[in-house]
Amino acid sequence: MAMPAAASTNIVLRLEMDKDSTTFGRIATAIGAAGGDIVAVDVSGTSKTTTIRDLTVNISETHRKELIVSALNKLPGVHVLQVSDQTFLMHLGGKIEVTPKMTIKTRDDLSRVYTPGVANVSMAIYEEPGRAHTLTIKRNTIAVVSDGTAVLGLGNIGPLAAMPVMEGKAMLFKQLAGVDAFPICLDTQDTEEIIATIKRIAPAFGGINLEDISSPRCFEIERRLIEELDIPVFHDDQHGTAVVLLAGILNAVKLAGKRLPDCKVVLNGVGAAGIACTKILLAAGVTNIIGVDRAGALVSGRDYEHDAWNWYAGHTNPEREQGVLSDVITGADIFIGVSAPGVLKADDIRKMAKDPIVFAMANPTPEIAPEEAEGLVRVMATGRSDYPNQINNVLCFPGLFRGVLDCRASRVTEEMKLAAAHAIASVVTEEELNEYYIIPSVFNPHVAEKVKEAVIQAAYASGVARRRERGVQQSAVKVLTQA
Amino acid sequence: MAMPAAASTNIVLRLEMDKDSTTFGRIATAIGAAGGDIVAVDVSGTSKTTTIRDLTVNISETHRKELIVSALNKLPGVHVLQVSDQTFLMHLGGKIEVTPKMTIKTRDDLSRVYTPGVANVSMAIYEEPGRAHTLTIKRNTIAVVSDGTAVLGLGNIGPLAAMPVMEGKAMLFKQLAGVDAFPICLDTQDTEEIIATIKRIAPAFGGINLEDISSPRCFEIERRLIEELDIPVFHDDQHGTAVVLLAGILNAVKLAGKRLPDCKVVLNGVGAAGIACTKILLAAGVTNIIGVDRAGALVSGRDYEHDAWNWYAGHTNPEREQGVLSDVITGADIFIGVSAPGVLKADDIRKMAKDPIVFAMANPTPEIAPEEAEGLVRVMATGRSDYPNQINNVLCFPGLFRGVLDCRASRVTEEMKLAAAHAIASVVTEEELNEYYIIPSVFNPHVAEKVKEAVIQAAYASGVARRRERGVQQSAVKVLTQA
Repeated sequence: MAMPAAASTNIVLRLEMDKDSTTFGRIATAIGAAGGDIVAVDVSGTSKTTTIRDLTVNISETHRKELIVSALNKLPGVHVLQVSDQTFLMHLGGKIEVTPKMTIKTRDDLSRVYTPGVANVSMAIYEEPGRAHTLTIKRNTIAVVSDGTAVLGLGNIGPLAAMPVMEGKAMLFKQLAGVDAFPICLDTQDTEEIIATIKRIAPAFGGINLEDISSPRCFEIERRLIEELDIPVFHDDQHGTAVVLLAGILNAVKLAGKRLPDCKVVLNGVGAAGIACTKILLAAGVTNIIGVDRAGALVSGRDYEHDAWNWYAGHTNPEREQGVLSDVITGADIFIGVSAPGVLKADDIRKMAKDPIVFAMANPTPEIAPEEAEGLVRVMATGRSDYPNQINNVLCFPGLFRGVLDCRASRVTEEMKLAAAHAIASVVTEEELNEYYIIPSVFNPHVAEKVKEAVIQAAYASGVARRRERGVQQSAVKVLTQA
Repeated sequence: MAMPAAASTNIVLRLEMDKDSTTFGRIATAIGAAGGDIVAVDVSGTSKTTTIRDLTVNISETHRKELIVSALNKLPGVHVLQVSDQTFLMHLGGKIEVTPKMTIKTRDDLSRVYTPGVANVSMAIYEEPGRAHTLTIKRNTIAVVSDGTAVLGLGNIGPLAAMPVMEGKAMLFKQLAGVDAFPICLDTQDTEEIIATIKRIAPAFGGINLEDISSPRCFEIERRLIEELDIPVFHDDQHGTAVVLLAGILNAVKLAGKRLPDCKVVLNGVGAAGIACTKILLAAGVTNIIGVDRAGALVSGRDYEHDAWNWYAGHTNPEREQGVLSDVITGADIFIGVSAPGVLKADDIRKMAKDPIVFAMANPTPEIAPEEAEGLVRVMATGRSDYPNQINNVLCFPGLFRGVLDCRASRVTEEMKLAAAHAIASVVTEEELNEYYIIPSVFNPHVAEKVKEAVIQAAYASGVARRRERGVQQSAVKVLTQA
């Protein structure tokens, strides 16, 4: 369960070399001595006295990078202008592109996809706006919208810095579920401005994935957009996490021979994700769940600073248990952490019921290290990819939006989220299920398809699917290909 | 110069068939008798009593479509639910998609393009926001923004109906110049809301192409966005038209042996495009240009209803000529129409100076039919693809934005527009230049490249290019490919 060893990787050094006072030979020697292997050289600029070269250098260990840079900077007439590693190189120019589905080869093509022929399509939509779901990218396109206030564990880094994350998400949407996703990073952090902006750009989109928007603004933004737009709006940090958590919990209790209605659940970290996890667990049959935050266990009848906490206290903790985490953990069947590193102690686990289930999802460092919990827990899950049982939103959002778009759902109901969780859990068969495999890998090719099917079925059952027949679009596309 | 003959085309008929009262044979017979040839059949839905089938039918003439539909509707138990032609089929599901530039194959890839590795890229941008131009899609992506108020010749058809046009434009951006363009159709027609919305979504984009926004709001929207954003904002209906017009005019006067400073120019239709055309002609050396609109020739000293007209009157018509079009056209060297069908008469052309140049750009029907003007004009241009000398914005916008993005220009200056016009004109060589070839075809592969080069050069000369060295990005991408 250790961190995987770093493979050899390439870095690119951009050097400015004074033509008179240095030679390439000296540079190559210095790089070799510091443990680097030059694999490519490109001249990227030149003046009378200097040249700028990009050197691609293979290194076997990360710390070689610093050694090489420091060796080069000691050479007279050499300046290291920039060092890029593989991660940065993969980001050059961004990670997604907007591509035409067909090439315009002839004037005839042009007159169909653009003026004058396109006018017929525009008028057809003008006469019947619902046709935009068939005749434009609204059919298959969602916006991934962030204001950059709660990006990964980095906090409020703003819209420009949030872009690489949203682009990465767009890649996953397309690769895993064929959903076209476009990143919209907003240059405002005002709740009303965010709501108004998303409403105004909504015509191009068949759904809105809210992402990395800080609490408590995220609640109001999502609630209002769900009310005021006729396309699904889904805050992934809340509901995506909740769906995948429930998927893992369903398999964990099955393995431990427990029933959800009988379980005592303690959840640490009553923020946006924690509240969503609680709601989906209640919907899935949990009756005794206790939320713990800075104020200790939330108990009904008290007056908390956040509205969300007052709601929480009123709907959970039926026994009105009081105290800090190490108090209320006593006798718990399940611990769920969406909080901070190291807050759960080995002694806390020892107080839990038999066959304890621990989901320590704080990122990047869990509430308790799996090494420390080993031997004490029956099942353990984290948010990390380098331990078994990773609770990763990637298991939910591609398939969920695929389903939503395919049945033209107007919103995402509780039933659809529950269906998605059961679908993810079902990918792990009875025979495969064990302590180290309660949840499928993010690369499992069946997940998105199963989630899609379940979401569509639930959308029809919930009465939010606006598409009459199924399979029609596919059929029409097939005809197009033949034509 | 006649309209090209329609080639045979496919249509798709969606039929609901009552199982008891009809057979497929009867349907096939009826289609054949009406001149259609069934080439594919797909069952797209079925119930106890009916089936729905999509029939792809080849027809040789457009009117066959109506004949077939009417024949089918006469059959008992058959309902034609929908008829799609090739143009509609090309629009199914939209015309563009959002695709990852690379496939995420391994967990290592995933950890670079998404969490946890992406955090390093986000933090690099947070520390130095300018890096977003290199490390995100901002490098190569523009927004094509419309509020749907002035779409083609269709008027105020709204944002959903505008989508197919903006998608078509995005296709052209990518195919002709490698620019990633994403359509944003706004669900508001309020000037301040449009400005605020575009400013808030700007972080993802390296430029804004405003499109099909009605006058006079388009002036204020563009002016304010240019002032308040640090990326270029370009209203294509104004400046794209102006650039391509000037390109045509430059070659037309060369052919006619005229000099722009000596020409009398009459422009009919003082709207957004007309004003932009006038400004670029003034910048190009024209001194005597007269604008004509519903109020007749605009003359300084009068008080007009629009601010734009007052500005216009104060900067044009130095001789203060008065009257309607047929008055002021006398002695004109150049007529420019950005107005309405048929407003220019053969007798008007007879009053013009020797070797008259007529640009009749009203769409789809020009100010005078080329057939009517033939023999009277030295050079004639229109906005149509079925006559020679088409003045088409497609000649400008792809290359212009390519150049703007490549040198990271902060705005589009007058010099850059003039440079683009000269570049387009230069694609037609001295040897090639003749009355029927003053402007290159939209499919000419050299146009975008020449426009790009000219725009970059002018951007550096104007001091708005923010990229220090050239060729750097390309070099880094090359390294990436080798790595």
